[in-house]
Amino acid sequence: MEKIITTAQAEKIYSQIKDLPIVDYHCHLSPKEIYENKVFGDLGEMWLGGDHYKWRLMRFYGIEEKYITGKDTTMKEKYEKFAEVVSTAYGNPIKDWCELELKLVFGIEKELCPENAEEIWEEANRVIKETGLCPRKMFEMFNVEYVATTDEVCDSLEYHKLLAADETLKTKVAPSFRVDKLIVFDANYLEYIENLGKVSETEIKCLCGLEKAVAKRMDYFVENGCKFSDVGIEGFPTRIADRDEAAVSFEKLINKKDLTAAEAEGLQGYLFVFLGKEYAKRNMIMQLHLGAKRNSNTKMLENIGRDSGFDCVGKPLDTDCVTSVLDQMFADGLLPKTVVYTLNPSMYYELITMCGAFPGTVIGVPWWFCDHKKGIFELFETFSSLGHIGAMFGMLTDSRSFLSYVRHDYFRQILAEYLGRFGDNEKIIETAKKLSYFNAIDRIQK
Amino acid sequence: MEKIITTAQAEKIYSQIKDLPIVDYHCHLSPKEIYENKVFGDLGEMWLGGDHYKWRLMRFYGIEEKYITGKDTTMKEKYEKFAEVVSTAYGNPIKDWCELELKLVFGIEKELCPENAEEIWEEANRVIKETGLCPRKMFEMFNVEYVATTDEVCDSLEYHKLLAADETLKTKVAPSFRVDKLIVFDANYLEYIENLGKVSETEIKCLCGLEKAVAKRMDYFVENGCKFSDVGIEGFPTRIADRDEAAVSFEKLINKKDLTAAEAEGLQGYLFVFLGKEYAKRNMIMQLHLGAKRNSNTKMLENIGRDSGFDCVGKPLDTDCVTSVLDQMFADGLLPKTVVYTLNPSMYYELITMCGAFPGTVIGVPWWFCDHKKGIFELFETFSSLGHIGAMFGMLTDSRSFLSYVRHDYFRQILAEYLGRFGDNEKIIETAKKLSYFNAIDRIQK
Amino acid sequence: MEKIITTAQAEKIYSQIKDLPIVDYHCHLSPKEIYENKVFGDLGEMWLGGDHYKWRLMRFYGIEEKYITGKDTTMKEKYEKFAEVVSTAYGNPIKDWCELELKLVFGIEKELCPENAEEIWEEANRVIKETGLCPRKMFEMFNVEYVATTDEVCDSLEYHKLLAADETLKTKVAPSFRVDKLIVFDANYLEYIENLGKVSETEIKCLCGLEKAVAKRMDYFVENGCKFSDVGIEGFPTRIADRDEAAVSFEKLINKKDLTAAEAEGLQGYLFVFLGKEYAKRNMIMQLHLGAKRNSNTKMLENIGRDSGFDCVGKPLDTDCVTSVLDQMFADGLLPKTVVYTLNPSMYYELITMCGAFPGTVIGVPWWFCDHKKGIFELFETFSSLGHIGAMFGMLTDSRSFLSYVRHDYFRQILAEYLGRFGDNEKIIETAKKLSYFNAIDRIQK
Repeated sequence: MEKIITTAQAEKIYSQIKDLPIVDYHCHLSPKEIYENKVFGDLGEMWLGGDHYKWRLMRFYGIEEKYITGKDTTMKEKYEKFAEVVSTAYGNPIKDWCELELKLVFGIEKELCPENAEEIWEEANRVIKETGLCPRKMFEMFNVEYVATTDEVCDSLEYHKLLAADETLKTKVAPSFRVDKLIVFDANYLEYIENLGKVSETEIKCLCGLEKAVAKRMDYFVENGCKFSDVGIEGFPTRIADRDEAAVSFEKLINKKDLTAAEAEGLQGYLFVFLGKEYAKRNMIMQLHLGAKRNSNTKMLENIGRDSGFDCVGKPLDTDCVTSVLDQMFADGLLPKTVVYTLNPSMYYELITMCGAFPGTVIGVPWWFCDHKKGIFELFETFSSLGHIGAMFGMLTDSRSFLSYVRHDYFRQILAEYLGRFGDNEKIIETAKKLSYFNAIDRIQK
Repeated sequence: MEKIITTAQAEKIYSQIKDLPIVDYHCHLSPKEIYENKVFGDLGEMWLGGDHYKWRLMRFYGIEEKYITGKDTTMKEKYEKFAEVVSTAYGNPIKDWCELELKLVFGIEKELCPENAEEIWEEANRVIKETGLCPRKMFEMFNVEYVATTDEVCDSLEYHKLLAADETLKTKVAPSFRVDKLIVFDANYLEYIENLGKVSETEIKCLCGLEKAVAKRMDYFVENGCKFSDVGIEGFPTRIADRDEAAVSFEKLINKKDLTAAEAEGLQGYLFVFLGKEYAKRNMIMQLHLGAKRNSNTKMLENIGRDSGFDCVGKPLDTDCVTSVLDQMFADGLLPKTVVYTLNPSMYYELITMCGAFPGTVIGVPWWFCDHKKGIFELFETFSSLGHIGAMFGMLTDSRSFLSYVRHDYFRQILAEYLGRFGDNEKIIETAKKLSYFNAIDRIQK
Repeated sequence: MEKIITTAQAEKIYSQIKDLPIVDYHCHLSPKEIYENKVFGDLGEMWLGGDHYKWRLMRFYGIEEKYITGKDTTMKEKYEKFAEVVSTAYGNPIKDWCELELKLVFGIEKELCPENAEEIWEEANRVIKETGLCPRKMFEMFNVEYVATTDEVCDSLEYHKLLAADETLKTKVAPSFRVDKLIVFDANYLEYIENLGKVSETEIKCLCGLEKAVAKRMDYFVENGCKFSDVGIEGFPTRIADRDEAAVSFEKLINKKDLTAAEAEGLQGYLFVFLGKEYAKRNMIMQLHLGAKRNSNTKMLENIGRDSGFDCVGKPLDTDCVTSVLDQMFADGLLPKTVVYTLNPSMYYELITMCGAFPGTVIGVPWWFCDHKKGIFELFETFSSLGHIGAMFGMLTDSRSFLSYVRHDYFRQILAEYLGRFGDNEKIIETAKKLSYFNAIDRIQK
């Protein structure tokens, strides 16, 4: 792994932040898994059971699909292929993360490669078994103070309730309000609305009913500790319908009449604004994940399903549309605190300056394909140049894996190296602490 | 402030350019203020009275609007908030510029922070009063040889005439021909045309009349020393109407009939080409400022007005349209010398290679949100790789503040550091001098 | 020239790759010139006879066109102007390449400038004459193992046949299948189709006929050693017609009826997919060159013609369209090995992640305006971060000049410097060798 910290200043800054608690305010961990707290399977299962980042990397290298997601190969066989792939994936964050995971979780200070794959397999699996490695051990190991999972609007939050009632759990685990299904009018929409009506005990025959149902769900989430909302649809609505138009469109929709593209965009735009204002009323933080392109490979979607490594960086969005949505919330006096993420770095200048025009709005840390050393430096440099580095919210994992807490350490090293350019005085260390921990926890506790 | 110059070569180059005169060929200084030459107000007034760059930074940090543009807080209170904000704005050029301004103008070698804010306030204000710091003192202090202000087509140039007649003024102050209002057909357009008719003593009942009036104004500007035109509208016309269509559209317009979007685009495109060819006839230099998005926050526009820090980087323009406009001027044998600026760096490759296809056309120095260390290095590296670094026109401030001359020093340091990579021989120093001074003054004196 | 290699690790890596054979799998060399193998003209002819890269640079600097492409000036005069221009073109790859060409081909270790232009002129021309410098000497000098030229679908491949029969030639020279004229429906299209019918001895009265003719030409190319296809049109089709629609559109076309824009896009999209699948059947590699804008300056096109330095970087394409084309080939089980190049680096994130969704698809080395030190580092860093650096295909010249083999050395230096960041162990050296030689030759020999 290329050394991240190269100066004495950076070293000093890092030493002051490396042991701060972790606030992982956006991830895709399963509350059920946290609750059940089972001992993990073997290293192959932990690494390759569901991690589409690694699957993509293996495909890039030319590994056959049967060694990636195939059912007729063992985890050990897949692990061996992965060891070969990762051993020369210079500059790819997966290589760095694996190295950090081996070191920080398993105490193995080696770069995985075909030559030591067997030995690492044995040693890591021994550690898993002997220490009974499980979700909550990971929380303790990494000093995780707060976790916000990602939960669909209709989710019962059953496991969140169980977790809240569990006094042995030191980490605060909260749900987030994820609204994609609510605003994408696809083939399952009517069924979705029917279900929403049920779980909210609200009749949804018109826009009024929808709004009432959503508000009830939001209240329910807030009662269960929710502080964050989230959305990560493809594209962004190009229009905002007024309430009358939106009401007509929604009724068409639930009466199984087709909407024109413009009507659908308008309704989606209306709902974006409606949701934002409801978040503001509840002091929730709005997260916008912009610029993903989902399921680029149709055949592989049919064969393997969603979230299997065939999502891509989408084309740049028309940022005027994003601005319009924030502008309307602000004009109505109800713009929530907002974090804007983009998968496409060509949008940074537009989005960061947009944030500057809406107080309380800030760019999010590099997301997904941008979450690597180069990407994090690029955002630090760009946001520093255009905004105020001290305003950044801080790191998150966005991950489905309990091993991903090493990404916070990775981020803190890069942060220290970046800030070290400016010196290592108290103010600089203070800023490093804010971005490592305090900005996030303070905002959550407000 | 992070050190800019890090090598002996850069140090040597910088020593050869740091004292060259300043040619500030594009700024927004007020000729009236230059003429009246009043002693400046206090440091708060100088820094925070109108500088929307600083206002944005304060909003990013979370400062309440009352401490930014509010009328019920004192300048001192605003200054104290600003001191807090800027003290940790690592990597933001405002931090660097403030440090340079304190040092070069006030002789204060300190980084502003809450702890020394009072002391710096006292000392800077003492210097202002004791030295009678005023616009022309700034010109002398920074060896400003030439200044081009930005003046609307209908401007009387009253103060420019007074300045030209003032033999005590060493700095040449010239107007620039800014045409935004002439080509944006908004609600005030008819009133604007009426006024244009008056000041040019020309009846504007048709396109002919408009062209005659504009040509007269241009002659008037040139008589008063004008060498540069400028435009900085949102977007760029997607069509160029031929003369017949443009004539019909313009008549519709002044007869209060609505234009279709296509007609409006076509007319605007026609006027772009018309203007460019008129500049060429007069050996004027055409400046195109591309990619701004104005007034993103509607409510703040209503509350505080324009130019208050709510402009943003616009989405990338369709550069084919820019090419078409230059192409038509060139085909007609009347392409003026042209400088193309962009707020959106994602357009650099397109625009720089476009410049290469139209001799005499060159990319402008980083504009506004791009005017920082990272942005200047990025343009140097990109333009060097795609074009010829020696062709760049040189630095400008684009500023409303007399303090902004430090940006020339900032630029020269970065230039020296950049060119130092290639050595420090005579040819390299020659190139550094061209970009610091000679390219601009030579082009102006041609 | 700014030093490229700065670390001991990079030095070590470079020493292991610098003498590997060259596989130039995409260039625009003339098979006729290779066959005839004439001794080159003077240095002016070699450098400035047809190299529009250099012409552009001279225009940027402000050289009059008569010293660039004019017929009334001598090559010596042009060379003298060029010496002046290149001597201060810091950071432009042309300066670096000239330096490498002088050193590696002529044994002259000097930076060209006006002061030594005469001396270098004499010395280089002496070398040309005394050594009888000619195409095949260049092949030997640079250890060129494989060259793929670029040949139009209807090309007779006459010289390729002669070259294949020439046992004295050590370098394998193969044609590539370039399809631009086949899928751009311009004024010459009917004539083109007529000619295609003739050379393929196939009646083309319908889409069937076209497909048959194309397949025959492809077979003919493959018989003559072709492994690569290529396309570099402006834009990219926004629709893919189904076969029925495509058949109707093609018949309209050859019956001289106008296609609507949508019909033309649809037919072009259909042909893209058809061609790709035919490549896959023949184990050919598909190259897509995306994002060029051709002939930006209409008047210069009329005066001087195509390929004279007036092409530019095009605006970003809608990458959804590119994805759709690959997606359909993949769904049909016939996606060929594919290399995707872009002139516009703002598309890298989209295109690289797209490659990750289609196994066997990879981003190409920096093309044309991107082929410089900054551009190569940018692609290495970006592709490493998003993909697997070991998957890259390797360097090519894309050049019309036999001198351009120095670009492989330039690339290898940058590659060594980049990989040196990660160390200099065996695995890293192995990766460097793959990208310098083995990935390309292995893929070709498969």
